[in-house]
Amino acid sequence: MTPSSDLENLIALMAKLPGLGPRSARRAVLQLVKKRSLQLIPLADAMARVAETARECLNCGNIGTADLCPICESEKRGNGELCIVEDVADLWAMERAGVFKGRYHVLGGTLSALDAVGPEELRIPKLIDRVATEEIREVILALNATVDGQTTAHYIADQLEGRVSVTSLAQGVPIGGELDYLDDGTISAALKARKTL
Amino acid sequence: MTPSSDLENLIALMAKLPGLGPRSARRAVLQLVKKRSLQLIPLADAMARVAETARECLNCGNIGTADLCPICESEKRGNGELCIVEDVADLWAMERAGVFKGRYHVLGGTLSALDAVGPEELRIPKLIDRVATEEIREVILALNATVDGQTTAHYIADQLEGRVSVTSLAQGVPIGGELDYLDDGTISAALKARKTL
Repeated sequence: MTPSSDLENLIALMAKLPGLGPRSARRAVLQLVKKRSLQLIPLADAMARVAETARECLNCGNIGTADLCPICESEKRGNGELCIVEDVADLWAMERAGVFKGRYHVLGGTLSALDAVGPEELRIPKLIDRVATEEIREVILALNATVDGQTTAHYIADQLEGRVSVTSLAQGVPIGGELDYLDDGTISAALKARKTL
Repeated sequence: MTPSSDLENLIALMAKLPGLGPRSARRAVLQLVKKRSLQLIPLADAMARVAETARECLNCGNIGTADLCPICESEKRGNGELCIVEDVADLWAMERAGVFKGRYHVLGGTLSALDAVGPEELRIPKLIDRVATEEIREVILALNATVDGQTTAHYIADQLEGRVSVTSLAQGVPIGGELDYLDDGTISAALKARKTL
């Protein structure tokens, strides 16, 4: 006889999370049961609360608790710069870096011929709409440096041509990176984009 | 502005689970928010249910939903064999193997001089009590092959000497194991315990 059906159900659900498999889900659930009041109950409550309150910002696609996310709400962030990211995780990564002071637009993925993802599936029409109606000076493409990400970047740049200045994140050697461990593509991109010191 | 405080709280709680760090907790929470009705709500419900129902078996220490776990309840499992494990995870591992047909006793850890864990902190008194009152022919020590595990095994064997037959899991080459990748200790244990074919 293995874990009770409630436990089994919880383990099966936990095992679906990214980064957890059946084995680590079992370990996590055992720890939760042992730390019931410190971890299990707060976690169940936090999940129920997020399930109730979390919603997509109608403007940019970020996750917040109201129709507009705090970034779209904030007057300070309306500096004319709009950063395009694939996913909310990328938006959070940009925010952690703490240098970008404008607003965001979350696409919700990348164009992909293989997966039949076209511009309508992403939030590209909404982006074009925002560029037309908001006061935006510069669109900064912060898409992942993958084939699909770069395809999407070129598509967006084409769509916005002539309406607004479009830039993209620099490619090169990451801070703390060692040349010996870098791929050829990164080194050649860094060499092409070299700067005078 | 980073994730809302509800989300941040959920991420912080998820990051405390074994096998998840801040980064994977963020990924997991984002996936949960995206799959609200398929994953987030069922998971919150499953956790609340387990928090309410899960309890330790008064007899063996297994986790179940009643005073006695299904294994202690089942008449069939009372075959006179008692398997001693450190943790509920080990009990589940034994059950998955599906060959042991007796009952279990979960110690809840191992003796450890460094961490000041003595016999009273574990469920060793209860074990001695069970050996005295239940009809037990054989105590099978299935403790981890670590220093603390083996110290605990020797302590228990000493305590039970003369009252019941005490055995322990065989040590040797694991199924599918290659000698080249095994440590010296395992090879020498396997050689000492060699069998005629």
